[in-house]
Amino acid sequence: MIRADKKLFTPGPLNTKASVKEAALRDIGSRDYEFIEIVANVRQELLKIAGTSNDNGYEAVIMQGSGTYAVEGTLTTAIPEGGKVLNIINGAYGRRISTILDIHNIEHLDIIFAENELPNINIIEDAIKYNENIKYLSVIYCETTTGIINPIEEIMKIAKNYGIITIVDAMSIFGAIEINVNDMQIDYLISSSNKCIEGIPGFAFVIFNREVLVNTNRKKRTLSLDIFDQWKGLERDGQFRFTPPIQAILAFNQALVEMEAEGGVIARKAKYKRNAAIILKGMEALGFEKYLDNDKESYIINTFRYPKTIPFDFTTFYRRLNEKNLVIYPGKLTNEDCFRIGNIGELNEKDMETLLDAIESVVNEFKAI
Amino acid sequence: MIRADKKLFTPGPLNTKASVKEAALRDIGSRDYEFIEIVANVRQELLKIAGTSNDNGYEAVIMQGSGTYAVEGTLTTAIPEGGKVLNIINGAYGRRISTILDIHNIEHLDIIFAENELPNINIIEDAIKYNENIKYLSVIYCETTTGIINPIEEIMKIAKNYGIITIVDAMSIFGAIEINVNDMQIDYLISSSNKCIEGIPGFAFVIFNREVLVNTNRKKRTLSLDIFDQWKGLERDGQFRFTPPIQAILAFNQALVEMEAEGGVIARKAKYKRNAAIILKGMEALGFEKYLDNDKESYIINTFRYPKTIPFDFTTFYRRLNEKNLVIYPGKLTNEDCFRIGNIGELNEKDMETLLDAIESVVNEFKAI
Repeated sequence: MIRADKKLFTPGPLNTKASVKEAALRDIGSRDYEFIEIVANVRQELLKIAGTSNDNGYEAVIMQGSGTYAVEGTLTTAIPEGGKVLNIINGAYGRRISTILDIHNIEHLDIIFAENELPNINIIEDAIKYNENIKYLSVIYCETTTGIINPIEEIMKIAKNYGIITIVDAMSIFGAIEINVNDMQIDYLISSSNKCIEGIPGFAFVIFNREVLVNTNRKKRTLSLDIFDQWKGLERDGQFRFTPPIQAILAFNQALVEMEAEGGVIARKAKYKRNAAIILKGMEALGFEKYLDNDKESYIINTFRYPKTIPFDFTTFYRRLNEKNLVIYPGKLTNEDCFRIGNIGELNEKDMETLLDAIESVVNEFKAI
Repeated sequence: MIRADKKLFTPGPLNTKASVKEAALRDIGSRDYEFIEIVANVRQELLKIAGTSNDNGYEAVIMQGSGTYAVEGTLTTAIPEGGKVLNIINGAYGRRISTILDIHNIEHLDIIFAENELPNINIIEDAIKYNENIKYLSVIYCETTTGIINPIEEIMKIAKNYGIITIVDAMSIFGAIEINVNDMQIDYLISSSNKCIEGIPGFAFVIFNREVLVNTNRKKRTLSLDIFDQWKGLERDGQFRFTPPIQAILAFNQALVEMEAEGGVIARKAKYKRNAAIILKGMEALGFEKYLDNDKESYIINTFRYPKTIPFDFTTFYRRLNEKNLVIYPGKLTNEDCFRIGNIGELNEKDMETLLDAIESVVNEFKAI
């Protein structure tokens, strides 16, 4: 029995298809033949979604834990002793990279842009130009803090002009945007199981340029999070070094089948854009102000300011929607009160309308106070 | 539909109850009220199984990833800069602790015993006595390498006599042995979701002495694996710092209910002992030699030598059993060919008999060669 559950308008964990959850309803050995085949399939499919393959010089590695584990694993494996990173920040996840680099004593220059601004390409180029010891660049593809989608192609182009190795945290957008890591010259790309592929949480993954990683003068900084060792383990016998989240991988394997059947990345992006358009139009009609300017695209998640013209209380707002089985997401901005509505996961146009109707009714309750 | 699946005679991931897997068939927000309550409940129940409570000075923290993540998290959080560890080794998991300590440049003295021997208490005491700078001790409760159960009570007693802080990796036995961390004076105890509580894989957990951790002059060695930060995050608002494996936690919560209904730790231990007794008797009758001497208890998993009197090939042996949907486990000894049969998980006496019948038939095939 699958319980009728809440609709999650969040950046993930998300609503997933019943078939995806049902695929996890099995006990299978972590070293068993069938599981090894499934893991190999998942790794190949991830490369395809990244527009590449082993033959094109890329590898995919699965890492137990949350997305942040894979971000920390990538940074600590990819950057050698003495390596210096240009870290581009316009939200909380860029700041998190900075925190990780600090903990591991990795030198970094942070370029911090406002949370409602796209990173400025000229400033990035100047920073690279005038800091010759910078050999690595890290950036967030879609900053979940606001939903802003950063200009990754342009940033990668500049990085490559200067021979910089690139690390892209594509956590909340991988699978819902056309990516070709070869063409875009992305060396490391990170995402997780419970985002746009619409699996359940339990692992993250890294797609990386084999030659770049192999040629890195690696410093072993952790056992668990080392993506080189994790990759070597998977290559050796198809097995994980340490117990994998089997059921999350079974579910993800099914999510990949469902995604392909639905039309892949293009269809998924179109679905989220439809959902986003309904929310943006509806919220505007209800008097909510979008945080990002209209020239900033954001179809994964949208940020709205607390309304000032009605007696608004977020905790009440959240709880009243939750009572209707509709789960929205709090804000994460540094200096402004806001909340967020996600468009991703197994949500359709009707779900978005249902949420808007519920928001209208709660707004009317506030107005009646 | 739950697929009739293989029987897993492994140290985990294991066979789990249908009700446990079904509990995972839900989408629920990671920051949602209901999930926060479930997480709080799981943490309390873990303390109970460890024979303690918050009032007794202990805390339980859940950590995303495999058991090794929590071992690395505990070692790197519990041991300050300059701290020296006495690491007791009689198998692969003790050696893994040594590897982790090396990677993090934590000084350690390894005392290595044979894989078929219990750690010698006098040698441990002497090592502590003559190395005054040793302030930490790490040891494996049940070495899955052989199945040997180490004399933790005696080791803890000595450690405490010398004021040593203790870290016990109880991965494969927690839930199937009576533990009282207060009486035994264990400061840190580690296990994972897919062992004797019989949940699905996806996370590990650490039960720790609050005062000991709070008073540690901590060095921040990682972001993701820091158990102090993880604990503080859970204490702040009941939420995880980073996306938790929601479905694995839902399944585990149900596994705890099922375990309690079955009679808790005592009943679970009795079940595994029954399973082990059948296997040991049956394997002996089939001419297999147990690796451990009879005075070493091992009811979690048992190790058997490759037979020498028949033309035995392990790959064929494994594959033929696998074709009958029976999954055994390869060996991990340093210097002897062996395989292992696990007794834990949702396996009953009939399952053990089924395995023995299948082994007999494969042995007869070998004899007929």
